[in-house]
Amino acid sequence: MTSKPNEPYYAVIFSSQRTDGDNGYDRMSEAMEKLASEQPGFLGVEGVRNAEGAGITISYWESLEAIHNWKQNQAHKAAQEKGRQAWYRDYKVKVCMVEREYAFE
Amino acid sequence: MTSKPNEPYYAVIFSSQRTDGDNGYDRMSEAMEKLASEQPGFLGVEGVRNAEGAGITISYWESLEAIHNWKQNQAHKAAQEKGRQAWYRDYKVKVCMVEREYAFE
Repeated sequence: MTSKPNEPYYAVIFSSQRTDGDNGYDRMSEAMEKLASEQPGFLGVEGVRNAEGAGITISYWESLEAIHNWKQNQAHKAAQEKGRQAWYRDYKVKVCMVEREYAFE
Repeated sequence: MTSKPNEPYYAVIFSSQRTDGDNGYDRMSEAMEKLASEQPGFLGVEGVRNAEGAGITISYWESLEAIHNWKQNQAHKAAQEKGRQAWYRDYKVKVCMVEREYAFE
């Protein structure tokens, strides 16, 4: 049941607490997810946010370089700045290498 | 802002979709979180589940050995079995090494 990916790949864990109100967050969040999915090395994204505004979003990437490039993307940098000013009370980011995975369906 | 942990540590990403109804899930979930926190090498846990039953829980560990031992824990194995029988429609597990992290507060 356990399998090692053929190539190592990477996960960016983004844990956050939203501020109150939308303030343009939903629209920007959708736009950023679309833009991320168009970047070289993007593998996928999953995320959950509860009614209290606590959220975990994990994006998956082929390489650390792809993660670096996305972090430096100009539109994404503007969104990050807006995130710190308006949308997030706090957040934590962890960059991880996926060692192995398994699933139940 | 970016920092590398002094020692590498590990994250277990558990993404799941719950079935309908509680069926003893909440009580067991609390008990397992408490039991996990008592295991050698446990560093912490964070999790979010939304109203539709989609959840992401991430536990953090000092070593792959600690993760292995927790997976083999007898009470945890019984909970895993019940999870597949009753609580989860599907789940995915990824074991990752944390490469670096940063935060905004």
